[in-house]
Amino acid sequence: MDSSNLIERVLAGETRAVARAISKVEDGAKDAALLMKEVFPRTGRGLIIGITGSPGAGKSSLVDKLALLYRQRKERVGIVCVDPSSPFSGGAILGDRIRMQTLGLDRGVFIRSMATRGNLGGLARATVDAVAILDAAGFNKIIVETVGVGQDEVEIVKTADVSVVVLVPGMGDDIQAIKAGIMEIGDIFVINKADREGVLRTEKELEALLSLAARTDDWYPPIVKTVATENKGIDDLASAIESYREFQLKTEASAPRRQAIARWRILELLRERLLARTLGSDSASERLDALAAEVADKRRDPYSAVEEIMNEAISSQ
Amino acid sequence: MDSSNLIERVLAGETRAVARAISKVEDGAKDAALLMKEVFPRTGRGLIIGITGSPGAGKSSLVDKLALLYRQRKERVGIVCVDPSSPFSGGAILGDRIRMQTLGLDRGVFIRSMATRGNLGGLARATVDAVAILDAAGFNKIIVETVGVGQDEVEIVKTADVSVVVLVPGMGDDIQAIKAGIMEIGDIFVINKADREGVLRTEKELEALLSLAARTDDWYPPIVKTVATENKGIDDLASAIESYREFQLKTEASAPRRQAIARWRILELLRERLLARTLGSDSASERLDALAAEVADKRRDPYSAVEEIMNEAISSQ
Repeated sequence: MDSSNLIERVLAGETRAVARAISKVEDGAKDAALLMKEVFPRTGRGLIIGITGSPGAGKSSLVDKLALLYRQRKERVGIVCVDPSSPFSGGAILGDRIRMQTLGLDRGVFIRSMATRGNLGGLARATVDAVAILDAAGFNKIIVETVGVGQDEVEIVKTADVSVVVLVPGMGDDIQAIKAGIMEIGDIFVINKADREGVLRTEKELEALLSLAARTDDWYPPIVKTVATENKGIDDLASAIESYREFQLKTEASAPRRQAIARWRILELLRERLLARTLGSDSASERLDALAAEVADKRRDPYSAVEEIMNEAISSQ
Repeated sequence: MDSSNLIERVLAGETRAVARAISKVEDGAKDAALLMKEVFPRTGRGLIIGITGSPGAGKSSLVDKLALLYRQRKERVGIVCVDPSSPFSGGAILGDRIRMQTLGLDRGVFIRSMATRGNLGGLARATVDAVAILDAAGFNKIIVETVGVGQDEVEIVKTADVSVVVLVPGMGDDIQAIKAGIMEIGDIFVINKADREGVLRTEKELEALLSLAARTDDWYPPIVKTVATENKGIDDLASAIESYREFQLKTEASAPRRQAIARWRILELLRERLLARTLGSDSASERLDALAAEVADKRRDPYSAVEEIMNEAISSQ
């Protein structure tokens, strides 16, 4: 399957071609840039929903139930699960297998976990590229689910059209810990496991925090209560997502957001490309290892090492 | 205060000079490289303890109690709190203020929160630089505490001599979510809030997970139970930290670890410097905004935009 053939089949929505295209952007394959240049102009039809929240908040169940609801409405659903804390991907694969039992036999659902590949980075960039591929392939809803609540995850969720933050009752400490950064990215808040004690208190605390959050638009983020494992409140969540989407389209509130996403995306890719250009050759990579050994033994400081790498890269260009 | 004077005062352990030096590396000031070149060879005397875990696990209380214990032993303690999810730093500052009430009046304790500054990155690099400054300034114990459990946080905790992962009982889902990545970085595991129900189950689950984790050395990570708010188990945690340190020194298990840290550190700094060199000028920054606007409107794809920025940067060198 050559590149142009692959692109055609991706645009036709073929599952295997989509999987292969995502592997290419994940691996940073040579022809990934060519692929993405073709894919990018075909994006913008699907709705991208970002879902984040603390570990243990039940995000996976919530995503699965939301996907099932969209499936009942005959929509095609892509799920991209981002797991930066699992560099060895064992965890991600295990999670996938469990999910495949409920959703995986359905051809209208595509599930993919993205994990870190080595320390040259690129996970966030690969994730937005994977979302773009699913979008161009005609998936109507693309859900990006994160495992953690770190900076990378927040950045990725910010690239969605609609961002959903999931909490559970009795997370007083948690809300305190999650704080400003994540509060400001949520367009919709979900209190999952809402059959547990302390829902009211969590709701009050959340309302108080939301009243402090500085939004750049006039949207007031709704709080939706769900019990994902019992399929309760999923309709409400879907309605809230739809309402925010309508608000966005009506107010053109999405223009500065789209510009910020584009800027972030360029920066991510630029960072990756600059590093690849500087360290891409085998000799440069060996040089890095040699310098790292010197720094580890304190025979050299990291700043001098970096200056040396940069000077060598310039003189070899 | 000129640079050489500042360095002298940092090495003499003066609190205000330390604070100022950390601000310089955080801001990426011009003379930060000079400062770090002087600081780096003076590091390696303090013990760096990384503490991570889910939001709500009680990490802050645990860190505070551990710091108090070290203070009773007449050691100087530096605490660096990493909060990447709080780009607006309001949360970090609030947290600091609360802590200052218990620890802050003690001159033997230095507390600093590191938050994200804009989207050019550098938080992880600034954090390890801050730790190096505290080390060179003669702090005996330097505790790096993270707020989230994302990739950045994991990377930062991996740069410590000893990594501690904090859990709480009844986090079955949580352990599942935390998974492989974080399990593999923990040298010591703490079950905090160990007066709650479900301690035994959490311990069993944790043991099962630990038996699967692939460590590169022969250390078997101990599980320490604490109730930080009641100051219970803190001695055990300090002993566990000491045991691991002794193991490291005895087995030279720390050599590959130090090399990996050095490599990561060079990469972080290199990434930051390459981006700064390419986008450092006002005209390059304007060009980025203009290209972002084109990408947002789908008049251009991100890959072409990045190629253009890189070509322009090369031709202007």
